[in-house]
Amino acid sequence: MTILVQKYGGTSVGTIERIEKVAKKIIKKKLEGYKVVVVVSAMAKTTDQLLAMAYGMSKNPPKRELDMLLSTGEQISIALLSIALNEQGHKAISFTGSQVGIKTTGFHTNSKISEIDGSRIREALEDDKIVIVAGFQGINENDDITTLGRGGSDTTAVALAANLKCECQIYTDVDGIYSVDPRVYSKAKKLNFITFEEMSEMASLGAGVIHYRAIELGEKFGVPIYVASSKQDIEGTFIKESDNMMEGPAITGMAINNDDAMISLNNIPHDIELIASIFNSLAQDDINIDMISQTSPQNGMVSISFTLPKGMLSEGVKIINSYIDKYPNIHMDINEDITKLSVVGIGMRSQSGVAAKMFMLLAEAEIPIYMVTTSEIRISYVIHPDHQQKSVEIIAGAFNL
Amino acid sequence: MTILVQKYGGTSVGTIERIEKVAKKIIKKKLEGYKVVVVVSAMAKTTDQLLAMAYGMSKNPPKRELDMLLSTGEQISIALLSIALNEQGHKAISFTGSQVGIKTTGFHTNSKISEIDGSRIREALEDDKIVIVAGFQGINENDDITTLGRGGSDTTAVALAANLKCECQIYTDVDGIYSVDPRVYSKAKKLNFITFEEMSEMASLGAGVIHYRAIELGEKFGVPIYVASSKQDIEGTFIKESDNMMEGPAITGMAINNDDAMISLNNIPHDIELIASIFNSLAQDDINIDMISQTSPQNGMVSISFTLPKGMLSEGVKIINSYIDKYPNIHMDINEDITKLSVVGIGMRSQSGVAAKMFMLLAEAEIPIYMVTTSEIRISYVIHPDHQQKSVEIIAGAFNL
Repeated sequence: MTILVQKYGGTSVGTIERIEKVAKKIIKKKLEGYKVVVVVSAMAKTTDQLLAMAYGMSKNPPKRELDMLLSTGEQISIALLSIALNEQGHKAISFTGSQVGIKTTGFHTNSKISEIDGSRIREALEDDKIVIVAGFQGINENDDITTLGRGGSDTTAVALAANLKCECQIYTDVDGIYSVDPRVYSKAKKLNFITFEEMSEMASLGAGVIHYRAIELGEKFGVPIYVASSKQDIEGTFIKESDNMMEGPAITGMAINNDDAMISLNNIPHDIELIASIFNSLAQDDINIDMISQTSPQNGMVSISFTLPKGMLSEGVKIINSYIDKYPNIHMDINEDITKLSVVGIGMRSQSGVAAKMFMLLAEAEIPIYMVTTSEIRISYVIHPDHQQKSVEIIAGAFNL
Repeated sequence: MTILVQKYGGTSVGTIERIEKVAKKIIKKKLEGYKVVVVVSAMAKTTDQLLAMAYGMSKNPPKRELDMLLSTGEQISIALLSIALNEQGHKAISFTGSQVGIKTTGFHTNSKISEIDGSRIREALEDDKIVIVAGFQGINENDDITTLGRGGSDTTAVALAANLKCECQIYTDVDGIYSVDPRVYSKAKKLNFITFEEMSEMASLGAGVIHYRAIELGEKFGVPIYVASSKQDIEGTFIKESDNMMEGPAITGMAINNDDAMISLNNIPHDIELIASIFNSLAQDDINIDMISQTSPQNGMVSISFTLPKGMLSEGVKIINSYIDKYPNIHMDINEDITKLSVVGIGMRSQSGVAAKMFMLLAEAEIPIYMVTTSEIRISYVIHPDHQQKSVEIIAGAFNL
């Protein structure tokens, strides 16, 4: 008998009626012959309500106590889903993260799973029960309740599938992973299949339906992840290891990001320690730099451009200004009016000329490129937002996305 | 340094504002030099909302899952109270029942505390922290979350005080224990002091501010319990072991109960097995019989009267009718229009004639008595509700309640 882990997010269990529908979907898999383990998030809005109470009393509540508070959200969901399943005539049992031995390390509100003792899950499955596990939570070495931060329930689901050596199905608001965001490019195709590497790049670019932590964990333990709609009964997308037997297309997907700003610095002394120190200062303030490009030195001076989240811009500018105080010749340009486009595909490894083809296409369309960076399976470029739509259509069309 | 356990009920922590007020009361004790352990209930209404969701899906939700669900209520309270205390500048830490090792036995939704491992509490107190513990919950031998049923948070508080060998303060909606319900008898006195035995009788008669389970536990482990108002800063009532040095008054308090009905059976064959069988059948259906009186046999027949909760009446009548089917001469009278009055006092042991004095007073006032039962420290009698007020005034007045 095959074990299957399913995960349902907060919207999918947002009301009593939706919980009852989710129960029906789970029972369908059970009747198909699977042993089912279900991970659920807190009911939509519950977490916000709990946070509002905590921050209503304190601007800076102790994180241990926030975890104690927030973990109740998932505990409510698992109990209700278990009640719904039992009511529909199927034995089910709910467990908190602590009860199934989800051990974590790291900080409260942002812990990492270090270890899972799945023995209670296995016993309950052998007892022919549907097992419901609270997502997003675990316990640390002090037996204190912890939460896993953003994407936590996806991470719980993939980690359990790794422990149980089975597939992980993630049911969500969207019906799969598209080559390009369908809201931007209506002809975008839903992918039947994407590799962990590609999905990891897409997810880190913000185009992901699931959090990159879950993808990384899936890749590390070889857990096939299936992403599909919790509402409709249509085919979703498989994320798995690449199939070496087949030549894939050069590009699998395209991610569009309007949340970044670009800072350009000119006249920086070509001093590797200075440049390292600038990026180190930015990193210490948790400013997440994505693209970095540097020109070759001219007269001992270089130019550097980089992108950072708009929300971090004022912080970043402050840090750069502290360097300009010491090196007054450095000139800073700030550009908030940018779009970052990234194409991702493991096929790039074997197919050369992808970047050249892209640049040619953009040049023909007279779209100026502000900045480019490339990695082994990704090319990112920055353009003006006015050119976003045209650029997406040209590239997606040419590479058949 | 003295340890002190305080307990605050659902109304006391019903809103963010009230939680902040409770935090101030706790800090006051801390500043007086106590090491404080606080037990809290779920915020008022939370439990009802959770139950509404569960029973919205199922008429008979699995009790294990109800416990999983309901225990979140207290977990929310402890986290919020801890956040409030930390915000007001005092180190506090919250624990679930499981985290402080409150082990239980028995059935889900109605478990009993079997054992407490208070080591985490002691460590936190030594660390100069205020310790907040979730009331009403524990874990059983399977590591499943359990709840303690009615009066559960009071029981948690007294059990912790027993473990920590300290006093237990129960803060509640009322400002102490009165000799008679002040809503019925406005001249009723607040008692400074009542013995466990008396309080136990009062509580089992429904006149108690705290549940009789908590009282029994307090008596068993010699935990002094102080009951006072969570809102006002006025003297409450101590429940403790009797002080043998002093002669107490004959009667300490009077309990009034309008929730019972009376069944009278005439023409029952005087057969001890038959009578035992009737009460056994009632007990098996969880029908809580309080008073029982039986006349001496006449012509081999006896009469029996007993009281039972009105809510159980139809169930009780059904059982009696099944006996009447077999013994058609038995005649049943049902009386729902009754008031049960009980006077309680350990002084009755040493002072004779209390019952005689009461009967005389009631006879002078021409109040007919339907039924009487007595125990070592209690006299209960049943009258018509129309005579309740007069009876309370005569007896409370004569015995200086």
